Formats: sequence, structure tokens, C-alpha cells
Amino acid sequence: MGEAAVTLQLARFLVESRWGDLPQAVRHEAKRALLNFLGCALGGCRDEAIERALAALAPFSGPPQATLIGRGQRLDVLHAALINAMSANVLDFDDTHLRTLIHPSAPVAAALFALAELRGASGESLLHAFVLGVEAECRIGNAVSPGHYERGWHISGTCGVFGAAAAAGKLLGLDAQGMAWALGLAATQSAGLVEMLGSMAKSLHLGAAARNGLAAALLAERKFTASERGIEAPQGFAHVLGEKPRLSAITGGLGETWELSQNAYKPYPCGVVLHPVIDGCIELGQRHAIAPRDIERIALTVNPLAIARADRKSPRDGLEAKLSLQHGAAVAILHGAAGVKQFTDACVGEPAVAELRGRVELAEDPSTARDAARVALHMKNGRALKVDVPHALGSVQRPMSDADLEAKFRDLAQLGAPGRETRSTIDGVWSLDALADASALARVAVS
Amino acid sequence: MGEAAVTLQLARFLVESRWGDLPQAVRHEAKRALLNFLGCALGGCRDEAIERALAALAPFSGPPQATLIGRGQRLDVLHAALINAMSANVLDFDDTHLRTLIHPSAPVAAALFALAELRGASGESLLHAFVLGVEAECRIGNAVSPGHYERGWHISGTCGVFGAAAAAGKLLGLDAQGMAWALGLAATQSAGLVEMLGSMAKSLHLGAAARNGLAAALLAERKFTASERGIEAPQGFAHVLGEKPRLSAITGGLGETWELSQNAYKPYPCGVVLHPVIDGCIELGQRHAIAPRDIERIALTVNPLAIARADRKSPRDGLEAKLSLQHGAAVAILHGAAGVKQFTDACVGEPAVAELRGRVELAEDPSTARDAARVALHMKNGRALKVDVPHALGSVQRPMSDADLEAKFRDLAQLGAPGRETRSTIDGVWSLDALADASALARVAVS
Repeated sequence: MGEAAVTLQLARFLVESRWGDLPQAVRHEAKRALLNFLGCALGGCRDEAIERALAALAPFSGPPQATLIGRGQRLDVLHAALINAMSANVLDFDDTHLRTLIHPSAPVAAALFALAELRGASGESLLHAFVLGVEAECRIGNAVSPGHYERGWHISGTCGVFGAAAAAGKLLGLDAQGMAWALGLAATQSAGLVEMLGSMAKSLHLGAAARNGLAAALLAERKFTASERGIEAPQGFAHVLGEKPRLSAITGGLGETWELSQNAYKPYPCGVVLHPVIDGCIELGQRHAIAPRDIERIALTVNPLAIARADRKSPRDGLEAKLSLQHGAAVAILHGAAGVKQFTDACVGEPAVAELRGRVELAEDPSTARDAARVALHMKNGRALKVDVPHALGSVQRPMSDADLEAKFRDLAQLGAPGRETRSTIDGVWSLDALADASALARVAVS
Repeated sequence: MGEAAVTLQLARFLVESRWGDLPQAVRHEAKRALLNFLGCALGGCRDEAIERALAALAPFSGPPQATLIGRGQRLDVLHAALINAMSANVLDFDDTHLRTLIHPSAPVAAALFALAELRGASGESLLHAFVLGVEAECRIGNAVSPGHYERGWHISGTCGVFGAAAAAGKLLGLDAQGMAWALGLAATQSAGLVEMLGSMAKSLHLGAAARNGLAAALLAERKFTASERGIEAPQGFAHVLGEKPRLSAITGGLGETWELSQNAYKPYPCGVVLHPVIDGCIELGQRHAIAPRDIERIALTVNPLAIARADRKSPRDGLEAKLSLQHGAAVAILHGAAGVKQFTDACVGEPAVAELRGRVELAEDPSTARDAARVALHMKNGRALKVDVPHALGSVQRPMSDADLEAKFRDLAQLGAPGRETRSTIDGVWSLDALADASALARVAVS
């Protein structure tokens, strides 16, 4: 390990990849991911975290080079990449690479749309760079999982920076040495702590990944040098931020398998570990007429990771509730839904919700898959209502359909940019590979 | 460990500290550090790494808010902080906190001078914030040393971001909660890999620390939230980036001891681990008439850390030579000096230098202090010329005098900004605490 030229091998693959090499299914998945990205960014663009970040940082923006999705305002490309990636992640509604729990699209797509506005890019080249960016970040994530996340690294930030660098480097046409430098400059800016989940800083991780990865590629373009062994060297990313990394996960089968095909989209705007629990509770509510006061306790059996990340009986606000299994179960029972509204501060403070959260009991079962859960409502009359959820809606095994994703896009657009026309953006994404100028879509999507 | 509210305790100390609390010696040391910072930034401001970084990033700069030291050009404060910290570090001539090997001043001073130009600051308040920033970064560094560096973290970047955040937060007048958020936002942007030493990316670590720490404070000012336990939480900085951290090193004796009094200034523009070796070789050259061709081998006995960081028999360029014990010994023997000229690509490529590097032999001795070395020239005639260097020039035990620092400033100013007048800046630094507007000095120092 550590001896093979992993960074250079990956760089050469990224540089030499041709659009024609990509399977049709992967190309379509890229469009699904971008539609989901644009919807999430529209939905999140007026979030308080975004308003505060803009109040703090916009005074330092350069020329109006790239559009803030949903807001119209234009900032320099680095700030636009930062803010758009944050917007796309702030509702916890963006996509998930289930093996690593990376939210892959936000840093990569935000960097690309900003760069496309500055330098121009065909739809095909943007889609191609997007697929490669996701491939790089998820393979690097695979190499350090699960020890990396377990140690406390917010993997969407730490690996997202590689995705943004690889994608931007592809669009800039870097050669292999330049791409290796870009990956090295990404490695040495890799950051983000799990401790920040539940605060505004969480989305900053994805924003910084987009901005820093884009800057890494732009620096490499100007021959600003870095180690060409940034990933594999003994004091490089994999060994410093990883625990027993498997570097072969980065280079094995490059061009044969595609990580984007393992990508999942969320029906609920919260941590993915809550999803099977929400599915089960909604299903029980639909099957039975349940009066919440008749429930003695709600017993949830989940994968240990879900408990490690989301055992929060008393979330203090909407942000913390997104990582509260107890809150997810309570709103799914009480409201029969778990949308953006159910993860607001107001909903978290509802007495009935708080009370029901207190009656949720968690049990961990390593044999339960990450996208599975067992839900049992133990009623005061001694009856038990049970459901098994083998795969959460939105998982790879039970994916959201294209129509589901269009509906989700419309809902999110309505939330963040009420009244805006959505059809042209949806059609633009599905036909993106035929578009001569991807930045036209970027501007349509964002104006 | 991990349970005490370390982040909040540190934040309260920073917020409540008064200028009158600082000992006179610490105030004077702050001026010495700032004079050294300004000189290093002047000397480095035209380095190729800076030119390339500016070519890549200046197109994204916001309004001309703060001056690039030595260049006159003005960028927004975030980019100015980035570039000035890089300039101050790029020659490897900046200061060193010997216990941790942090180069403390560049990120802190670069953030403060930029912010002072934007918001205004008295000399006293800038000096005060500078002392506190250095205190925060070095104490956090103490808590994770030596395991943190040994794992591969470039501690000047990973801890520098805390220093810039703490100092900028002090100048902005954040309250304790805001300061805790700023420290949390710093923690979650902490980055930089030892693998990058020897490439341009090395200085980017300090630049990013300055920019990201300053941004952390500006975000916290706008109530952009973070965990208030960013340092001590199980998935916070100290446990994720540290190996067996000692958190008491952060809070123990706050306000009683001052890390700035452990600061050292370099007489040679290279890694501090080379310094005692260079001292010894220069001394032997002054004592004896040495013909290099008569040397059979040069035997260096040093602390193991020196070998871990700087065993490089064949550095490829000036950057790598700054961390080559062999190169440091060779030029000190051949040129009787180890200045900026001795660490250029041209000097690295000189056949005589390369040849003599090949005759250097390293031995490690854990009982040899980090600022000590033993040098033995074994001559072909069987004679051995030996010298013991108990403390390198520029160490805490054998410090550079104020006059030495003035001379160093003049040399560096001559290098980066030939012909500029230096007396007014030197006088301005020594009387900085009496200056009503510190940004006046910033502009004088940089125009």
C-alpha cells in the first residue's frame, strides 16, 4: 500500500476519459443527480444559514461571474460555488452515496455550474466532468470507509473537495500532472468535523469543498505545484485522515464500474439513517387508525450506525432534528409526513411532538441493513403494530423514479422560489447532453 | 478529558483579556514577531509561488480593501490575508514556536493587518489581538503535540486557522458565544498535510489558515453557528486530528504563561531543524581553512525529528532544499552562508553542492535537543574537525537581538522590494502600541 502511484493513476484516468466511455445508464443517472441538485439548491437558497453566510461573505465577493441558484444575485465563481453547494445541502435533502454516506453532488455540481458560467462548457462536457468528479470523491471515500467517518470526519466535506477538484480540472482540460496537483491541493484542504452536524457549519463543509476544490483546479491550471502523491503518500490524505485505508478501492476497475450508479435520492429532508424509520411509521399510520395517546412506546430496531449518528431524544432545533431518529418517528406518526415543514424549529418545539419523541425506544441490530428498519408500535391496550422496512424509499434497491424526482424538484422550487416556472429547467436537464452551452441551463435554472 | 468546556473556556479568556494584563516582555515580543512577519512578507512577495497563486486567484478578488505587502496592489480582505500569509511563509524564514514547530505569526498577522485596513484598529488593539491569536494557536498545538505532526499534519496550517480566528474575533469584539463559534468554524476548516512540504502547497496551508480563520470570525459575527465544543468533543478537533490530546494544555495557566515568549526567529530561510547544523558548519569554516575536496564525509548527529523531516540527499529544487539537512550542511561549508540565495534552484543544481551533499552522513540521537547538533568533518588525511552546537542561533536560549531582527528586516525588504525605505516601518513597529490607527502602519509597511 502507499507505494503505487494512486494519485497519478487516478489523474490519468480522469484526463483520458472520453464521454463515449460512459454507459447510457450512468449518463442518465448524472441528469437525475443534477435535477435533484438544482431542486435542493432552489429549496435551500433562502435558508437562514445561507442568509447569514451571505451577509458575512458577500462584501468580499469579486466580479459577478456566476449566479446564486434561486436568488438571481451573481458573485465571483468561488463564492458562487461555496453558496450554491451550501444551498443544495442545507435542507439535508441532497443525494447520498450509500456505501460512504457522502452527499456527492453538491460540491461537484456547484463548482461546475459556476465554472461553466465563467469559461463556457457544453452540456456534454459538464455532464462528463460531473460523472468523473463523483467517481473520484466516492472512490476516495470508499478507500477510507468506514474508519474515516467513525473517527469523526464529515466525509461529504473531506471527500467532496476531491470531487470538485477533479470535475473542475476536467472542465479546465488539465493534463495528468496538473490533475495530480489539483488532487494534491484538494487533499491538503480536506476538512470537516462530524461534531458540527446539527449546526450551520455542517453545510459550510460542502460549500468549502466546492470552493476549495474549484480553487485547487484553478491553481493547478496556473502551475501552482503540490505533491503528486497527495492521496497515497505516508503523510498524504489516505493515511493521515484514514484508518487502514484500502487504496486499491481508488484504482481498481476504474472505467468499469461507476459509483454514480450507487447514488440515492432522499424523499425526506433529513439524515438518510432516519428514512426507513419514517417509511415504516408512515406506512403504519396509513394501515391503521392510530390515536397517538394510545401509544405506549415506539420501538425502533436499526443498524448501529443509525444510533451512533442519530440518537437524539431532545433535538434543540430543526437542524438537530434532522439527525434525530426519535423526531423522525414522532412526526411520521403525528403528521403522516416528514417534509421540510416537519424539520423546522417550530415543529421541533410542538409539545405533542416532543412528548411522542420521549416514548421512542431504540435498539441496534448489526444484521439490519443501513437502509432497513423494524418499527413496532406498542399500544396501551397491549396490541403491537409492526412493520418491516427492508429498503427505504430512495435507496438503490427502491429508487425514486424520474417522475418522483420531478415532483420533488417542483416542491423544492416552490419552497425556495415560489411561483417560478419549473418545466423548462426539468426539460433542460433531461436534454442537457444536447445543449451546446451548459451555462445557459445554469442561468435558466437559477434565474 | 473531552468533558470540560475547553472551547468556551478559551473563548471566555480571549474575550475577557485586557491589554493591561499582558506583561511588558510579551508586548515587546509581539513587536519583534510583527517586524519579522513584515520583513518575511516583503522578502517573499515576488516569489514564483505568490505570482502563480495571484494569477489563479486575483480574478476572483472582491473590492480593493487591503494591501498586498510589498506589492501595493489591493485585494479584498480574505484574499489579502491569504496572499500575505503565503508571502510571509514562502521563504521559510518566518518565526517558529519551538515546542510545536508552528510558524505562528503569518496566519495571525496577515488576518489582522487585512482586517485593520477594513474596519480600523489601534496599534494597541492589533498587538493585543496578535498576542491572543498566537496564544490560542500554540496552546491548541501543545495539546496535540507531538502526535499530530507525527501523523502527518502540517501544524502551522492546522493550528494557524485557530490563531487567525481568535485574533480576528478579538478585533471584531465577539462575545464568548461568538468566539466559541469562530473557534468551531476554525476547527472544522483545519487542514494541511506534511506531504506537501517541498511544494508550493506548503505556503498555501498558512494562507488558507489566515483566510479561513478570518472568515470564521466574520461568519461568527453574523451569527453563523457552529458547535461550541469544536475542540474538545469526541468528534471535535483534538480527538479527530490529535493522537491522545492533552486538553489541559489549552486551559491550564491561561493568562499566566504566554506562548509568544517561546517564539524563535530564523537567521536562515529554511526548516528550523537545519539551523544548528548550519551554525556548526559555518563555525567550522570560520575556524579552519577547509578545502571541500579534502573532506571525506560530513557526519551530522541530530534529533530524530530532524531526520524524519529533513533527510533529503538529492533535493530537486530550492523548495525541497529547505528541508534537506544535507543541502544545509553543504552550502554552509561551501559558501560560508545559508541565505535566500543558498536555497534557490540554481544553488541546488550547482555540481559542487550536489557532490558535497552526497558526502553527508546523518545519525540520530534522541538525547540531542531539537535546536542542537554535533558536526564532524572527517578529512581525507584522517583528521576530524568537530563542533558541538548546544543551541542554534535564533533559538529561545540564543535569541536574535532586536538589532539582528532589524538587519534581517532590511535584508528581506531589499530582496522583495529593492530600494524601499525601511526606517519608518521599523520605527513604526517599535512604537506600534502608541499608534491610533494600526492600518496606517499596515499601509506604510506595504506600500
